[in-house]
Parts: sequence; structure tokens; C-alpha cells
Amino acid sequence: MNISHIEHLGIAVANLEESIKYYEGVLGLKCYAIEEVVDQKVKTAFFMVGSTKIELLESTSPEGPIGKFIEKKGPGMHHIAFAVKDTDAALKTAEDRGVRLIDKVSRKGAEGLNIGFLHPKSTHGVLTELCSKKE
Amino acid sequence: MNISHIEHLGIAVANLEESIKYYEGVLGLKCYAIEEVVDQKVKTAFFMVGSTKIELLESTSPEGPIGKFIEKKGPGMHHIAFAVKDTDAALKTAEDRGVRLIDKVSRKGAEGLNIGFLHPKSTHGVLTELCSKKE
Repeated sequence: MNISHIEHLGIAVANLEESIKYYEGVLGLKCYAIEEVVDQKVKTAFFMVGSTKIELLESTSPEGPIGKFIEKKGPGMHHIAFAVKDTDAALKTAEDRGVRLIDKVSRKGAEGLNIGFLHPKSTHGVLTELCSKKE
Repeated sequence: MNISHIEHLGIAVANLEESIKYYEGVLGLKCYAIEEVVDQKVKTAFFMVGSTKIELLESTSPEGPIGKFIEKKGPGMHHIAFAVKDTDAALKTAEDRGVRLIDKVSRKGAEGLNIGFLHPKSTHGVLTELCSKKE
């Protein structure tokens, strides 16, 4: 599996603009990018904290995964993403070790990373992403 | 505020032993310490991932904060802890910037760190801890 670090932490927010104000104005972090991931129905804002990113996620539709998450649980921490060398190899390893996968093969995520999700039923309630840099 | 990195990520688990098996056996991380924090009614297990720790939290009582969290939301990500130079100074800064505090002054947490919590009502749903090394 060879996890090197936590690549990012995904946080579901109700209002991206208001949340950016908090992360910048209170915590003193700096938003370095805003990106819309149409496929996932989210608008994202990125902050670097040490070697880990915070990825704020605002839903662009109540039908998207973040829209549904917020309706059910309210705003808050949504997923953890571990950096691996090769997402597809790591997904295979996880499956071989009995983990149920959301993504059988990697797909493109924000910032062009190769990403894949493990199912929270197999990860003790934590929605877990594996990601690696594009080749 | 001067946050240097994410010191740890607190994850509420139903069963510490079972969760350790997942973090070690599936993700390939290594548990380096198990500690009971009597004051917080939790038993914790620590893993290092890059420069950030994962802190698994099992409640030792249904009346403790983790016991209540799991009853309400189920197991999953519980809090994020940012490393600062001086927890008391950072708590003061947060309060000056309009944040409601859980801890007005720092107290001792796991691993002897000086810790203090911001209220999730002021942090867009994310229970947020500030922590610094003991002097």
C-alpha cells in the first residue's frame, strides 16, 4: 500500500465563500486554488497546511454526493485521502485484503490526481480516498 | 495563529482493537502507542502518516464525548488538530476573531500536549483543536 502522507482532507461546507473567510481570516491559511469538479457536482477550495491540503467542498446540486452528505449529516469532515504511489495497485491491494471498493479502477479527481475511494462500510465509518499523481 | 501542520486527526471508532487491525492490516500503517486519557473517557491508538498522526478514539463510557458522538453520528472522523506554537495565544487570537471557544485556556491532552478546542458552531461544523508541545 505504501502510504506516504495524508494528501488531503475533504470538508463539506454549506457555503464556500463563508468558509474560505473562516479558514483565511481566523486560521490564517491561504486559499491557493478554487476549482469546479463538474463530474462530482462540487466547487472546491484548496489550502496547504504543512504537507497536507484541506479541500473545502461545496455542492453545486442537492443531488450530488456532498449535497446528500450535508442533508444527512450537516457540514463537516467528509473524507480522508492518503497519498500512494499507484492508486490502481493500492485499490487492488485493498480489495485483496477484503475491503469493499467504491472505485474498482482509478479516475481523475481535482488537481488531475488519479483517485479511488474505499467504501466506508469497510473502513470503520471513514470515507477513504487513495490518490496518486498522474503519470 | 501560525499553524505549521495538521498535528493529528481524531477518528471515533466503536472498537479500538478491530480498527487497529484495519489501519495496520489493510492500510499498512503502524500503531506506535496506545494510551488511555481518563479525563476524556477514551482509549486512543496512534499512527504516524507523514507528519500527521491518526488518533483512533474508543470511548470507555457511553457518557464520554466520543460515546455521545458515536451514538449520534456513528463512527467516523471526529476532529482535526492543528499544530501551533502556543495554544493559549492561538485560543486568544481565535476568540478575538469571533470564534466561540470550548476551552478558554489550554489543558493537557494525549501525549502531554497543550490542547484547546474551538466550538464547531464557529468552525463550520468541524470540531477543531489547537495544540502545542509542552514547554
